[in-house]
Amino acid sequence: MEKVFTIEQLEKLLNTSSYSELINKLDAMDPADVADLLEEIPPEQQDKIFSILDAEKASDVLIELEQNELDDFIERAEPKELAKFIGEMAPDDQADILAIVDTVNRNKVMDFLPEDERHKLRALLGYDEESAGGIMTPELCVVPINATVQEAVMAIAEREFDDPISMVFAIDKQGRLQGAAHISELLSKPGNAKMRDVIEKVQAVAKVDEDQESIANNFRKYDMLVMPVVDDNGVLVGRITVDDVMDVMQEEAVEDIAHMAGAPDMEKHEDSPVKIVALRMPWLMITMFAGLINSIIIQKMIGLTTIEGLAAYVPVVMAMGGNTGMQASAITVRGIALGEIEYGKLFKLSLKEILVGVLMGISCGTVTAFLVYGKLVFIGGVTAVPPLKLAFVVGISMCTAMGVAALCGTILPIILHKWKIDPALASGPFVTTGNDLAASMIYFAMCILLLH
Amino acid sequence: MEKVFTIEQLEKLLNTSSYSELINKLDAMDPADVADLLEEIPPEQQDKIFSILDAEKASDVLIELEQNELDDFIERAEPKELAKFIGEMAPDDQADILAIVDTVNRNKVMDFLPEDERHKLRALLGYDEESAGGIMTPELCVVPINATVQEAVMAIAEREFDDPISMVFAIDKQGRLQGAAHISELLSKPGNAKMRDVIEKVQAVAKVDEDQESIANNFRKYDMLVMPVVDDNGVLVGRITVDDVMDVMQEEAVEDIAHMAGAPDMEKHEDSPVKIVALRMPWLMITMFAGLINSIIIQKMIGLTTIEGLAAYVPVVMAMGGNTGMQASAITVRGIALGEIEYGKLFKLSLKEILVGVLMGISCGTVTAFLVYGKLVFIGGVTAVPPLKLAFVVGISMCTAMGVAALCGTILPIILHKWKIDPALASGPFVTTGNDLAASMIYFAMCILLLH
Repeated sequence: MEKVFTIEQLEKLLNTSSYSELINKLDAMDPADVADLLEEIPPEQQDKIFSILDAEKASDVLIELEQNELDDFIERAEPKELAKFIGEMAPDDQADILAIVDTVNRNKVMDFLPEDERHKLRALLGYDEESAGGIMTPELCVVPINATVQEAVMAIAEREFDDPISMVFAIDKQGRLQGAAHISELLSKPGNAKMRDVIEKVQAVAKVDEDQESIANNFRKYDMLVMPVVDDNGVLVGRITVDDVMDVMQEEAVEDIAHMAGAPDMEKHEDSPVKIVALRMPWLMITMFAGLINSIIIQKMIGLTTIEGLAAYVPVVMAMGGNTGMQASAITVRGIALGEIEYGKLFKLSLKEILVGVLMGISCGTVTAFLVYGKLVFIGGVTAVPPLKLAFVVGISMCTAMGVAALCGTILPIILHKWKIDPALASGPFVTTGNDLAASMIYFAMCILLLH
Repeated sequence: MEKVFTIEQLEKLLNTSSYSELINKLDAMDPADVADLLEEIPPEQQDKIFSILDAEKASDVLIELEQNELDDFIERAEPKELAKFIGEMAPDDQADILAIVDTVNRNKVMDFLPEDERHKLRALLGYDEESAGGIMTPELCVVPINATVQEAVMAIAEREFDDPISMVFAIDKQGRLQGAAHISELLSKPGNAKMRDVIEKVQAVAKVDEDQESIANNFRKYDMLVMPVVDDNGVLVGRITVDDVMDVMQEEAVEDIAHMAGAPDMEKHEDSPVKIVALRMPWLMITMFAGLINSIIIQKMIGLTTIEGLAAYVPVVMAMGGNTGMQASAITVRGIALGEIEYGKLFKLSLKEILVGVLMGISCGTVTAFLVYGKLVFIGGVTAVPPLKLAFVVGISMCTAMGVAALCGTILPIILHKWKIDPALASGPFVTTGNDLAASMIYFAMCILLLH
């Protein structure tokens, strides 16, 4: 399904109150594409669109929103409106949305739902969000093991499911899972065959409290599309479908990439520069303090009494530049992998990243300069140049090195991707090493410019 | 399905030639689990097992083998035996296996296959392995758009498919894709309804030459289970199922992690230490040469005429330690994410990683010592200590720092995982910074021990 119109067209229809045309266009689009559009417009316009879409379409769009947009919408929405949307969703999506709503409003929303749904939801909300119980849906197509194939096929045909069903599970009298059969398998068997003779053992069954990462590994290992979930007694309580697990796999991979580079995993590329700085700074602080301790150790060993002793600050300037570059490139590589960052936005992103790099550089550079000055004046240490000048050189070099590193870390992956080279290479040794060279040259250039 | 027996039991049955019992046990296991077992035993025993399993089971196990084991088996296998296994596979798996076979043997294998399969395979082999054509299967359930629902259901029931089918595609007279319907949807409609009134537009269609990463992104975005593949004229030529795409997503994520850390993406944790060293060294060489150029720049600026000038070599020792640690932890994090590395193997893995670190350290340290010595003696440079001694100090510190970094990079992620903390954090700033501190202390300790 193609995107049928652009943001400009959408805003024009909104501004001229051409709601019926707007609804027709949005109805023709896939919910995931509508969600993409909504993420680009202001909250009031989002709310307007949610209010004019019919509840079913609105609920489909809602679950496709990105996490931060979803959080914002839920905070703004009235409990009654939320309940209307939630009423249209599959149980696992209902629980996901309700888990975001704060406790007071959650009870208000629940009051608008029918008694049996409320009951089911309370059970689902009791599971850890990252466990099988947290990602499963309790909606199942189940037949007794003594049923006939004909009965199993009818069980699919006669009931309306929120998601398309392709597996029928067979249980014993105690509700314990005995096996499963794919619909296409059932259709090829005689209608009077017994389920017990047709079902196969399921390759991997999830325990209700099993961690989602191990479930994702089993889905991949056994090439499964649906996995049944059982409780401690082996009683079938729900199923997990592969599309829920794809999101899990992506989350885990993205988290790994972010953590490895010391980059905040909740950063979005549309965040403001100030917010990005706030998210990235804690990681850099670790490097900064450890780097300064390192410098003090080097000073203790070689002294700072000669001009040569200035080299004691090279490692900390290098480390700060290196980590800044790693963060920027990890976030860019992730954005490219998720399809969020394109070559067309290169110039705008670069400007923003220089700003982020320089802002972080000013913060870290200033703190470092104060610490260096304070250490030399109050704790002691003999230097070949005045402490104030030395502190200034260290601070300004760190700021410059970080700005350069943030810029390179952002544009290199995008350019490599454009050239059909894996952008992750840009965060590898080539760039780390390039940043090291740049940082030490910047430092010595500053020494020469400002001290001689 | 549980693993019904251990490697010891398997080897015992093999050694006592108890083949019928062996076949019974293996038949009760999932092919993925059998493949796991085979990966742990020597080639002759693997071959024996493949020769006694029936062709269908053997072919299922074969496609579950890890890439390197699969490559080895295919190199050893006779064309006739291979053809027998390939004959049992789905077309996309057939093409994947044939793509590994070298050209001479490929033609021999093809000669054993029926004419129509040979024809289909030649077409599939013509596509780029990382494109839609390379991962799709041409096996489809297709009906004309004028067919009835009853006819579509029969189309599934009456034909035997290699994979379970859950989507029926509808095409026009030219073979162009018009839409699709899920089986469970079809079963709930009256049998005499026309397909044209029942089908829905497919959210995302893959072009036959589209890159697999963009296809994987669409699968995730639209929560799809099956995606049709069309040629330039819109003619339906195949389908991609979500399980093929899960492998793609995992590959891309693993590649990103490896590239970001400058780690070889083809390394397996069961490779020998010497092979691991050979795979990791090229990346480290980049760092080493650039680091030495950096040292020379620092020397030019501050001179090496005083003891303080020895600090010029701190950055290169730090960078080598840092990159070695990053490689080791990236590979460990990946192994944990793929479920290949467990806490129980901690001691054995640690010993191996120290060995790898020290071997790489000896190589890099020796090369560096020679380069430092050569530079000082042949190109010139006045040092406060004899060139030979300086070269020795730099070499031995690099070797020690790399051994320590490789060890930390391996055991920290495993211990963090055991403590339920994300192991990727271990490759983040905490450890990079820790390695920096360790490397500069090792260097200065060596300076004091060996020069004073």
